[in-house]
Amino acid sequence: MDIIRNCREMQLRAESIRQEGRRIAFVPTMGYLHEGHLNLMREAKKLADELVVSIFVNPTQFGPGEDYEKYPRDFERDEALAKQEGVDIIFYPSVDDMYPPGYQTYVTVEEVTRNLCGMSRPVHFRGVATVCTKLFNIVKPHTAVFGKKDYQQLVTIRRMTADLNMDMEIVGVDITRESDGIAMSSRNAYLKQEEREAALSLSRGLKIAKKLYDDGERGASVIIRAVREYIESHEGTDIDYVKICDAETLEDVETLERESVIALAVRVGLPRLIDNHVFGEPLIIP
Amino acid sequence: MDIIRNCREMQLRAESIRQEGRRIAFVPTMGYLHEGHLNLMREAKKLADELVVSIFVNPTQFGPGEDYEKYPRDFERDEALAKQEGVDIIFYPSVDDMYPPGYQTYVTVEEVTRNLCGMSRPVHFRGVATVCTKLFNIVKPHTAVFGKKDYQQLVTIRRMTADLNMDMEIVGVDITRESDGIAMSSRNAYLKQEEREAALSLSRGLKIAKKLYDDGERGASVIIRAVREYIESHEGTDIDYVKICDAETLEDVETLERESVIALAVRVGLPRLIDNHVFGEPLIIP
Repeated sequence: MDIIRNCREMQLRAESIRQEGRRIAFVPTMGYLHEGHLNLMREAKKLADELVVSIFVNPTQFGPGEDYEKYPRDFERDEALAKQEGVDIIFYPSVDDMYPPGYQTYVTVEEVTRNLCGMSRPVHFRGVATVCTKLFNIVKPHTAVFGKKDYQQLVTIRRMTADLNMDMEIVGVDITRESDGIAMSSRNAYLKQEEREAALSLSRGLKIAKKLYDDGERGASVIIRAVREYIESHEGTDIDYVKICDAETLEDVETLERESVIALAVRVGLPRLIDNHVFGEPLIIP
Repeated sequence: MDIIRNCREMQLRAESIRQEGRRIAFVPTMGYLHEGHLNLMREAKKLADELVVSIFVNPTQFGPGEDYEKYPRDFERDEALAKQEGVDIIFYPSVDDMYPPGYQTYVTVEEVTRNLCGMSRPVHFRGVATVCTKLFNIVKPHTAVFGKKDYQQLVTIRRMTADLNMDMEIVGVDITRESDGIAMSSRNAYLKQEEREAALSLSRGLKIAKKLYDDGERGASVIIRAVREYIESHEGTDIDYVKICDAETLEDVETLERESVIALAVRVGLPRLIDNHVFGEPLIIP
């Protein structure tokens, strides 16, 4: 496994892999790898001759006052885990190489970034779209793999790659959950032991939503109210949003007719946790 | 010479040219080709195995009330001229294929687009940066060639390709002028015969600026005043701006110390004409 720290060196390597007619699969991450990331790597591995994983805590997708500085980092552990998964190249650039002095170009995806996390994190998706454009131009993947936990991110990246004619496939991978049901996230590291019960209210809230849907309920407000009440019944939860949206446009829906997603963001102690469920898809929660 | 109208077909063709190890040079145009464009093609031809020219009047770079609908178009004539220059592929997409329903992604370059034409054309450079990103992703060029007449555009594209790690070289080509000195532009087609004398005040104004500079003048305001007075002495001219800027950042300068550019935008009858001169470079005007 190679570790490449320089953007131009990674780009030259990627171009030479492509010239050999070999396929590149790419998993962009912010590191502090967990089982969710490793699942993305396993999926990506099936799709390519060369598997590239980037580790970069991207400053432009954190707003003022968010957790950029304290975001958990452990490169040595990440390196060992990536090696175990058969990663061929870790791309591990510095902030200065990615954003040199005078940097001033941004990619914005408009409608799909306005709702959900876009409401409370106004610069977040601009940062995500920008860094992914840069990473895609550096790593030149045939396929990039993203988790469905960051559902709005996946929709945004799909929209961006289609709109900007990026010649690559975007693959979404199902949410990986801890044994108790909590969606895997690097930010779960912030959770204190006594906050886990409150954190479980997200996935269990989704289970309530799924049950209502399976029993025939199609009114978004009825499902939202039930989920909110359940989450609020747990001490230490502070709901940012509970919303049901069109799965592609991410606009709020009143009635669940087309493919719809229920998305949650809840602060539990320090971390703001997110989770979601696309109605009609499997949801395995204890 | 092939004419390709479909974005995906062009992209597959470009990828297959690259797989053969052949170099692609690209000249993006809005058509209505003139000698300036043909010079870009001649330069591009030297740099590549395969020369691609796009013809696309891009709606997103025109503001409300600008001349998108009446921008001159003549595809048959463009086709004949491109063929004469040895163009290998004309990429001639439709607006619907470039911007399908639901399109919502934009590329913005910030500081360098604020001054000069960015002041009176607030969405222009966002449209230029977006369409160039799309075209670059479709045509996959090793080199793209732009004219220096649209100086701010050239600076913007250079900045964008560097910031977003686009793996290509941007080449700028000197302004091509008509025999009387007017910078070649498709919009010169709007000029009435009696307006040409007024239109000549742009290039002749640059000549005055160059003369002052060559005589040792380094005060931007002195040079600007002389050029403004000269242009205003011509009936039918309406100055949008006369500015002297840092050649790279495009910020106004007071004193010509680092490499500087004088840039003009003047409405003469219907068209808004632009011209510029980088101090220290040649300027051949009758």
